[in-house]
Amino acid sequence: MLKTRNRSLVLRERPTGEVGDEHFEMVEGPVPTPRAGEVVIRNEWLSFDPAQRGWMNDVRSYAPPVAIGEVMRAYGVGMIVASEHADLPVGTRVQGQLGWQEYAHIPPGGIGELTIVPPEIAHPETMLGVLGLTGLTAYFGMLMVGIPGVGDTVLVTAAAGATGSIAGQIARINGASRVVGTAGTAEKRAWVCEVAGFDECLDHYDDDVRRQLRRAAPGGYDVVFDNVGGSLLDAALFNIAERGRIALCGSISTGYRPERPAIGLHYYQLLTTRRSRMEGFLVTDFADQFDRARGDLSRWVDEGKIQASQDVLTGLERAPTGLARLFSGGNLGKQLLRLS
Amino acid sequence: MLKTRNRSLVLRERPTGEVGDEHFEMVEGPVPTPRAGEVVIRNEWLSFDPAQRGWMNDVRSYAPPVAIGEVMRAYGVGMIVASEHADLPVGTRVQGQLGWQEYAHIPPGGIGELTIVPPEIAHPETMLGVLGLTGLTAYFGMLMVGIPGVGDTVLVTAAAGATGSIAGQIARINGASRVVGTAGTAEKRAWVCEVAGFDECLDHYDDDVRRQLRRAAPGGYDVVFDNVGGSLLDAALFNIAERGRIALCGSISTGYRPERPAIGLHYYQLLTTRRSRMEGFLVTDFADQFDRARGDLSRWVDEGKIQASQDVLTGLERAPTGLARLFSGGNLGKQLLRLS
Repeated sequence: MLKTRNRSLVLRERPTGEVGDEHFEMVEGPVPTPRAGEVVIRNEWLSFDPAQRGWMNDVRSYAPPVAIGEVMRAYGVGMIVASEHADLPVGTRVQGQLGWQEYAHIPPGGIGELTIVPPEIAHPETMLGVLGLTGLTAYFGMLMVGIPGVGDTVLVTAAAGATGSIAGQIARINGASRVVGTAGTAEKRAWVCEVAGFDECLDHYDDDVRRQLRRAAPGGYDVVFDNVGGSLLDAALFNIAERGRIALCGSISTGYRPERPAIGLHYYQLLTTRRSRMEGFLVTDFADQFDRARGDLSRWVDEGKIQASQDVLTGLERAPTGLARLFSGGNLGKQLLRLS
Repeated sequence: MLKTRNRSLVLRERPTGEVGDEHFEMVEGPVPTPRAGEVVIRNEWLSFDPAQRGWMNDVRSYAPPVAIGEVMRAYGVGMIVASEHADLPVGTRVQGQLGWQEYAHIPPGGIGELTIVPPEIAHPETMLGVLGLTGLTAYFGMLMVGIPGVGDTVLVTAAAGATGSIAGQIARINGASRVVGTAGTAEKRAWVCEVAGFDECLDHYDDDVRRQLRRAAPGGYDVVFDNVGGSLLDAALFNIAERGRIALCGSISTGYRPERPAIGLHYYQLLTTRRSRMEGFLVTDFADQFDRARGDLSRWVDEGKIQASQDVLTGLERAPTGLARLFSGGNLGKQLLRLS
């Protein structure tokens, strides 16, 4: 039976430091009713992604900022519970930008952004993790930008994270002979080696990480998949191999906080002497290849070649906590929230 | 008539700051005599290149450092005056690593590194400039790494230098619609616009250069060809366009001084949100294409599409001054030394 009230978390003020409950406000309203060409979705799962922190800043970027008073933007999975759209009947499960709310009202212009979750997928929340944007980010960043070849040595920073953990395993599938990770806690490092199958995992808070990286791969890294930025990226630059490729995925160490400038990179000159490159990418640019990539990822999961981990909170009111955990390093694997 | 004595400048001690006369020692010896498979060259012109400063540091790089007591490594043009090599008769003019000396003695292993200067080249010293490594660096860095397309906006830092001035003109030939440079003096900026035909040239010492770059190209730069590094490169990163390409050629602002760390780059996160890349290259990797490139460059010079400038000192004893000028910004165009 449907509820009659919808709860939403809207952006109250833009954070300047760490994100917390005080930046959002819970508002209640009626469950929306679809008009022609629209659907209403009961949200089941919400995804937390570092990019969300960037969307909260009032700065020019690839996506417009979330407005004050607007429902916080987020990817999620949910079930269509009311529909005036012929192709999306009630009972269809979809993934898309559903927002921090219990019910999402999708206008005609947003229908094209929804992805149907195939009924044969046993765990629909994987459409937010290994089969969702984090897994797809690992897939395209590694295979289209990092491009590990047979015998290559690969470094993945934040290797216990939703993207890093998948990226390292994809490098291995693609032929890399040595895969090194970094993570912030002993528990995560154990998981990265024992479950995700990396050869070694270093402490990325180690003051001596530059030398540790060298010790772990004396010949340098052919591919670096970076989720951290700052001094760890600089240490990776110091250890780049000739013709190396650094895929710039994210920069979690900066917290995506506009008031805090990123720690500068000093070793960029080595890109010249080692004929190497550093390149950014956005997964959404590869949208026309998502189906093929999901097919590969799904098969690799079924074959046991990819291990994915999830970290699940429950209840809409905990959404700000879920987002903050990405930056405090509290999560192991994909941070999700299950709506009660 | 041949002299009987050869003078050479050998490295006495490695500089930690600016390079000067005190780091070299003039030594005299007999003019060498070639043995089987060898040639002796009377040096006519010496080239100054920023990479030479790097060769003086005792650090791992793409080329081994010059040893203490060894003749300072340098490219030059000279005439073969004694030969025991069938393919290189006396009277042949060659370009190669001839060193800071009046006569170069090339062992059998070094013969393959020499390039014959075609007799039809009216000014053999252009084999060190627009037809030499600086021109070739501009050619391959711009066309293989920066890759300006029709209508692109291009930024070249140190645009009055031997490489930058050619790079910007090649961008124009390749279809760029707007070419912006930076240079350190009013005289150079005037030359860059009036002779080399750039649309605009900014003062790269201006504290506000980040905003000046924005004003000069509000839509950002599709291609950046960077010779300067440090805070100017950071300002260029801040102004990179979507899908932009930064060709990392050199980092003259650092002085290639190992004791002085490069100013850090803070805006590297924009490479991700703008799907852009920063890539280093070494011209020597394109050696198998030098002949074709020289053909293009030579034709463009003949057609008046490329204007090259030279700055000439005279006398071997002034070689340290010639090298130092690259870092003080004293030269306009290619810095050369003519042996008296």
